[in-house]
Amino acid sequence: MANPHKQFHLAVFLLAGGHHVSGWRHPEADALGVHDFQYYKRLAQTAERGKFDAFFFADVLGIGQNDKRFDPSNVRLDPMLPLAALAVVTERIGLVATVSTSYNEPFNVARRFATLDHLSNGRASWNVVTSFKSQEANNFNQHSLPDPSLRYEKAREFVQVVKGLWDTWEEDALVADKESGIFSLEEKIHDLNHEGKYFSVRGPLNISRPPQGHPVIFQAGTSEGGKELAAETAEAVFTAWSTLEKAQEYYRDVKGRMARYGRAPDQLKIMLGLIPIVGRTEEEAERKEQELQSLLLPEVGVAKLSYMFGYDLSPFPIDEPLPQTFNLGDAHGASRRFQPIKDIADREQLTIRQLYERYAGNRGHLQVRGTPEQIADVMEEWFVAGAADGFNILPPYLPGGLDDFVDLVVPELQKRGLFRTEYEGTTLREHFGLSRPANRFH
Amino acid sequence: MANPHKQFHLAVFLLAGGHHVSGWRHPEADALGVHDFQYYKRLAQTAERGKFDAFFFADVLGIGQNDKRFDPSNVRLDPMLPLAALAVVTERIGLVATVSTSYNEPFNVARRFATLDHLSNGRASWNVVTSFKSQEANNFNQHSLPDPSLRYEKAREFVQVVKGLWDTWEEDALVADKESGIFSLEEKIHDLNHEGKYFSVRGPLNISRPPQGHPVIFQAGTSEGGKELAAETAEAVFTAWSTLEKAQEYYRDVKGRMARYGRAPDQLKIMLGLIPIVGRTEEEAERKEQELQSLLLPEVGVAKLSYMFGYDLSPFPIDEPLPQTFNLGDAHGASRRFQPIKDIADREQLTIRQLYERYAGNRGHLQVRGTPEQIADVMEEWFVAGAADGFNILPPYLPGGLDDFVDLVVPELQKRGLFRTEYEGTTLREHFGLSRPANRFH
Repeated sequence: MANPHKQFHLAVFLLAGGHHVSGWRHPEADALGVHDFQYYKRLAQTAERGKFDAFFFADVLGIGQNDKRFDPSNVRLDPMLPLAALAVVTERIGLVATVSTSYNEPFNVARRFATLDHLSNGRASWNVVTSFKSQEANNFNQHSLPDPSLRYEKAREFVQVVKGLWDTWEEDALVADKESGIFSLEEKIHDLNHEGKYFSVRGPLNISRPPQGHPVIFQAGTSEGGKELAAETAEAVFTAWSTLEKAQEYYRDVKGRMARYGRAPDQLKIMLGLIPIVGRTEEEAERKEQELQSLLLPEVGVAKLSYMFGYDLSPFPIDEPLPQTFNLGDAHGASRRFQPIKDIADREQLTIRQLYERYAGNRGHLQVRGTPEQIADVMEEWFVAGAADGFNILPPYLPGGLDDFVDLVVPELQKRGLFRTEYEGTTLREHFGLSRPANRFH
Repeated sequence: MANPHKQFHLAVFLLAGGHHVSGWRHPEADALGVHDFQYYKRLAQTAERGKFDAFFFADVLGIGQNDKRFDPSNVRLDPMLPLAALAVVTERIGLVATVSTSYNEPFNVARRFATLDHLSNGRASWNVVTSFKSQEANNFNQHSLPDPSLRYEKAREFVQVVKGLWDTWEEDALVADKESGIFSLEEKIHDLNHEGKYFSVRGPLNISRPPQGHPVIFQAGTSEGGKELAAETAEAVFTAWSTLEKAQEYYRDVKGRMARYGRAPDQLKIMLGLIPIVGRTEEEAERKEQELQSLLLPEVGVAKLSYMFGYDLSPFPIDEPLPQTFNLGDAHGASRRFQPIKDIADREQLTIRQLYERYAGNRGHLQVRGTPEQIADVMEEWFVAGAADGFNILPPYLPGGLDDFVDLVVPELQKRGLFRTEYEGTTLREHFGLSRPANRFH
């Protein structure tokens, strides 16, 4: 049995419809839940029943031009709003919202996360993304996407400003002293006076310091710029690898960069995406996977593969290998992590159809099929091998796929001492074992 | 008795701490409620018990440099988040959030209000403001405030883009057909392709059309630009007048401008701010008012007067009349509505202290003190005289000031047939009797 003090973390990564590309078509899936608060409430409360660290809301700011028919994630609520509502119907689970540094203002972002942190009594987390799709740029006054290095440079300054604004009120600035008429102490409320390359922000923020000091900073960096930003500023990273070696390499790489920023490796939690297909028996699990695979339309398979690679494969013959003109080295950072899949395709000379049948359903994430024991075995192996500090669970369909994980796999993890049986703290920072940031003005 | 079909509307205008400047110091006020969801929940549920049309969240994006000590409204949650949480603990009341067109992107704003409209099943409303304070500009990369005419020109385009984005999904675009695998109908999802002076937004939005078609557009325009923008685009206007004549003049002015935009006068509801000080007897009401006045510190009185006039009066002797150098004609739009108070000060040669004692507590809003019958008399008179289509209730302190209005004044209004006894519709648009906008793409 593992040392009970060496436990991993769990988050559920919410993508309306589920993480298998055909998950929304599953007979037990709630395909129209995407607009319905009851859907999100059920999912968050299930994850909280499973003692998860966090409930993670993905986001993208637009719809691809060739992508309007098959994809339930074309409908997305703005993450901050359902999370605010979930804050008042849950008690312990962390609430992570994806918000872009390219199409928002730092003052607004700092204030929104401070608000969520107050509403949830210390459970807010910001997943910092720079947005890498041209369809997003086109919705924000840009005809093309800015260069990645510029996006990361801007993101770095953006995060600095947000953290600075969170410090502008000292802990005890708000007194609300009815007797004297003093509501807040002027000497404990500070201007930030940030004047940088991208932002000029005077401050102070008009909300008092968040309960966590700073809401937890989440990221998902795979490119050089992304990894460096994560090492400098992230407290949790969402990553996706389908081979143990690549995951270990990434883990060592990111943690190894932290020292130069004066940070200890355990102050950043690496959360690996995992799609669990759970059965009470191996046969049941296999049947579930086949059912999902059978629902995958060729157009959708090709489109997802194109999306993963950042390269449109739809003009090419589906029963022939990948076109020779296509080279993943030209792709954006988020696609480069699919190099191992490209390598397998080239080595085995897989056709486009064979390739999407094998990899499109799970979009390159680690998919594990089996009994609760088999799934726990894989998670334990990867955790012990230094590939992750925890897992972002990506249920293949919703809500049933999350129910299965919480009801069947979590008890097995708890039995092995790999996962908590009760929350010890009340804030997300406490769940993750992260220290509370000091206030720079104090 | 009034015609039961000729009823007015009621909203509660939320300003943490209450609307009397010293309201937060009242013994029954919850001075620390500003961070606490239970505080907002209690207020919204009280207003819903009173069958109010809407719960209205004010907002300002910063703190004034000389204003850090006395003002509970220096602490503000981002309005969209508590309103999202209130959406799931209320059923009928409309939810109005103030959001600036100067420091946000139209795509984000359209999506947030669509999200709130979905979460609340058709109760969202956007109070469009352009932000007129330099303290706000300084938090958003600007060293000084843009010219009002530019702000309104930009706001006009901003609102057009937002409305356009709300139309990019036709009503029946989302089908979620598990059998065919078609999630949404490509031919019913439209690009906006807006290319304007300030914004370039391709669209479509990545959320389906809001239940109300368009969330209700609220505004608060007093300047020329503001009144014109209201006549063109607003469906409800928040305004503040302390004399009947001025209110009537404003009402006629704004409604009179609507024809040139092809709009009927009843498609815009003018909501007049009213601070009720309610007592079961006249004596009780008078005692309450004196209690609030006695809590007003001189620094606060002078600061509020300065804020109203947009002119710093703190350097001048408090027991002498207003300085001769001060001319309200130079002030920004929001201050110009205080001209009648300036006129009274000049005519009666009031000292600064006399002036703030008379007007600072209520910041120039219509304050009515008395029994439920007396307050209902004033509301009925102003409504019948064509000064308002309804009232934004500004409780002097919270939560007690709202309880008093709902428990004592609302029944009197209902008895007179001036206000509904039950909700008839489920959406804010229905409460206000506003028609549902057609979809431009259909």
